[in-house]
Amino acid sequence: MLQPAALSALSDLLGDRLSTATPDLALHGQSESHWQGPPPDAISYPISTAEVAAIAAISARHRIPLIAWGAGTSLEGHALAFQGGLTVDFRLMNKVLQVHPEDMIAVVQPGITREALNQELRATGLFFPVDPGANASLGGMAATRASGTTAVRYGTMRSNVLGLEAVLAGGEIIRTGTAAPKSSSGYDLTALMVGSEGTLGLITELTLRLHGQPEAVSAASCAFPSIAAAVDCVIATMQSGLAMARIELLDQASVAACNAHSATHLPLSPLLLIEFHGSPAHVDEQAKRFGEIAESFGCDSFAWASAQEDRNRLWKMRHQAYPAILASRPGCKAIVTDVCVPISALAAAVQETQADIAASSIPGPILGHVGDGNFHAILLIHPDNPAELAEAEALAKRMAERALRLGGTVTGEHGIGMGKLYAMQAEHGPAWAAMGRIKTALDPLNLMNPGKLVPQP
Amino acid sequence: MLQPAALSALSDLLGDRLSTATPDLALHGQSESHWQGPPPDAISYPISTAEVAAIAAISARHRIPLIAWGAGTSLEGHALAFQGGLTVDFRLMNKVLQVHPEDMIAVVQPGITREALNQELRATGLFFPVDPGANASLGGMAATRASGTTAVRYGTMRSNVLGLEAVLAGGEIIRTGTAAPKSSSGYDLTALMVGSEGTLGLITELTLRLHGQPEAVSAASCAFPSIAAAVDCVIATMQSGLAMARIELLDQASVAACNAHSATHLPLSPLLLIEFHGSPAHVDEQAKRFGEIAESFGCDSFAWASAQEDRNRLWKMRHQAYPAILASRPGCKAIVTDVCVPISALAAAVQETQADIAASSIPGPILGHVGDGNFHAILLIHPDNPAELAEAEALAKRMAERALRLGGTVTGEHGIGMGKLYAMQAEHGPAWAAMGRIKTALDPLNLMNPGKLVPQP
Repeated sequence: MLQPAALSALSDLLGDRLSTATPDLALHGQSESHWQGPPPDAISYPISTAEVAAIAAISARHRIPLIAWGAGTSLEGHALAFQGGLTVDFRLMNKVLQVHPEDMIAVVQPGITREALNQELRATGLFFPVDPGANASLGGMAATRASGTTAVRYGTMRSNVLGLEAVLAGGEIIRTGTAAPKSSSGYDLTALMVGSEGTLGLITELTLRLHGQPEAVSAASCAFPSIAAAVDCVIATMQSGLAMARIELLDQASVAACNAHSATHLPLSPLLLIEFHGSPAHVDEQAKRFGEIAESFGCDSFAWASAQEDRNRLWKMRHQAYPAILASRPGCKAIVTDVCVPISALAAAVQETQADIAASSIPGPILGHVGDGNFHAILLIHPDNPAELAEAEALAKRMAERALRLGGTVTGEHGIGMGKLYAMQAEHGPAWAAMGRIKTALDPLNLMNPGKLVPQP
Repeated sequence: MLQPAALSALSDLLGDRLSTATPDLALHGQSESHWQGPPPDAISYPISTAEVAAIAAISARHRIPLIAWGAGTSLEGHALAFQGGLTVDFRLMNKVLQVHPEDMIAVVQPGITREALNQELRATGLFFPVDPGANASLGGMAATRASGTTAVRYGTMRSNVLGLEAVLAGGEIIRTGTAAPKSSSGYDLTALMVGSEGTLGLITELTLRLHGQPEAVSAASCAFPSIAAAVDCVIATMQSGLAMARIELLDQASVAACNAHSATHLPLSPLLLIEFHGSPAHVDEQAKRFGEIAESFGCDSFAWASAQEDRNRLWKMRHQAYPAILASRPGCKAIVTDVCVPISALAAAVQETQADIAASSIPGPILGHVGDGNFHAILLIHPDNPAELAEAEALAKRMAERALRLGGTVTGEHGIGMGKLYAMQAEHGPAWAAMGRIKTALDPLNLMNPGKLVPQP
């Protein structure tokens, strides 16, 4: 609950860009997954870095927790105000500030979404490749260290954020990184902020690495007799040096849901969806070589999509997998959980997870960005059934434990939020306490997204 | 000066792997560049992480500064004991601990050199691509966030260290990262340690990303009428999406020195040395496309080196550029300084630097990894001439200031060490103080490479 003096200071600063309207609060207490939080005490809609710094100064004076909000698409409850406080919604800071085609970089505000950014970039011949599926904000994608289908070729947010501006607790503004492609100058504060989930500061500007729009693109769907065969094909492909732009796995249950939802007619077996980017000759060569590898692993159905509309249909189907899977069990909510393992452990991780889900009472299609060893289970539960929630949470927990046992991480791209906090000690050991010391050094009053990511005081 | 109790504790731990022999101390008070430090008080040669942890515990008890030492090839005095203390020389921790070809990773100790590592990897079909020229240790390369000729294709140490083990001040052992290709789990402590120059802890193990040895390789040297034409060719090439494995610039003075030293007959004009990796067809296609681009920028001499011995001669010549340039002014030492700028500013940065050097009394050939906007000046001075040293330092300082003015960084790959500490405030502004707060949080007694990188207490 904000004190009147705090509300008044915020109101003086922001005018009608401070909201305490009940529907607005409720909206910022929800998420795209099953996570629901208490609504925040108020919502701010800053329009400039200076305003964000002033908000942080008021926050320090009045001990107000600050929770950043981008597009609200996070899946682990990152942006929910579990300790109350002020949500900082960046929707009005959504501009492309600069594009430098020669340097292949763009400077953007954190509230712009990836689709809006790529729309603005279209005429430059460049694009920003990181694609988590949802039309997330770039600030949120950086804070979560997001990735998605194209990370196997273009990297995650870790490698595509060159620098940033952030407001620290108390209101100090720092800039990290430069417009140069690399640097050996000092601690990598850019990398430290990327993935910090709002606990170290509020990202107010991002310098992004852009990539050339590929001259030619070719995509295909390939059916395999088993998950193991599909995954072994992925391993062989990665080792062959073929530069896939995407390599996605859908298990049979995911394919069935997609067929029903998108009116596609994909064969009902484990599928790889792949894509190559490059010159026409290079794409052809790679597609041919991939075809040979896939065949040697028993791929028995191969459909190339070289025409743009066929590719669009294929990837639209893939991007619609989440709603398709949700629709496959009407009235359900989903626990969407992700893990990431070394490629060599991927077949074991997926098969053990499938078996675990099959032995439960819950449907849980599996799909993932397998070139990175990253996969998701979408556990479908009736929201009013506490037994199903408990069962799904136990499945997700075993999936995380399995990933650690296999040398992996409890989340490849969704982040920790509320859903994986329990696993931080198990994954990081003494390094988790070191994270807490860094947090305390930069945010001694624990005002930046408190309750998340680091050990709690 | 180490107190008798401290020496005795270290001696009990290390036996004859603790050295206070004068020649050994003197050796660890030197560097490959013009930097000379006082010798350390003693040198330790640990053989295990547990021993490094025990050293750190003794260091905390007796307030002994700890300075990591790899191969001694740093160029900015990173590993010199300017505040005395104990050098931790990792030469005995030089093993490859694990290689996982399916996951394309290797786990190594910090003292192994990159050449030794690639020798051990040879039979796997994989290699570790980061190549700073010197046969540096992997621990040192990580601590400096090193890169080199192949970073344009394979990335720097930032993207090729997946995780590490480090001993923090006081002796706590942390592990960061996992063997999975990516993660969204917590602060990126791997990236924080990479580039921290020994000020946050001692790296005792590294998990490295390996790459497939290219099936085909093609290299060429291309002469241009001017630096500007060569650099414009680089910009156009980068934008075309051609995936160069290397793209190096040598100015005319560098070419002259290399010709004299390596008995080569390269044309005396600004040169690009390029290399492509891939399938035979793809390499041919890229080479052809690069040839067209180069021609359009006035490249008038083009020599392909497809045979392995021709390529080896070319890159050996490039790797020998530093001794070649040193030899061009007998009896000299070099101030080797590097900066990195946005590609669009590269021509201006190089030309202004050339003009500045030409107006001085000091020879200073320029060469660099221009696909990354990174270049070096090798300023040749008589070590006993204080006026030349002062003039060279002023040139290097103006070069750093110029890089910042053009939106770049004061060092692309050599790091800060002693040589660029003065520039940290100018480059990072308030973010430099934030680095200091992180340092204090992890090393409250300031024992890890004190006097370097962060604001001094």
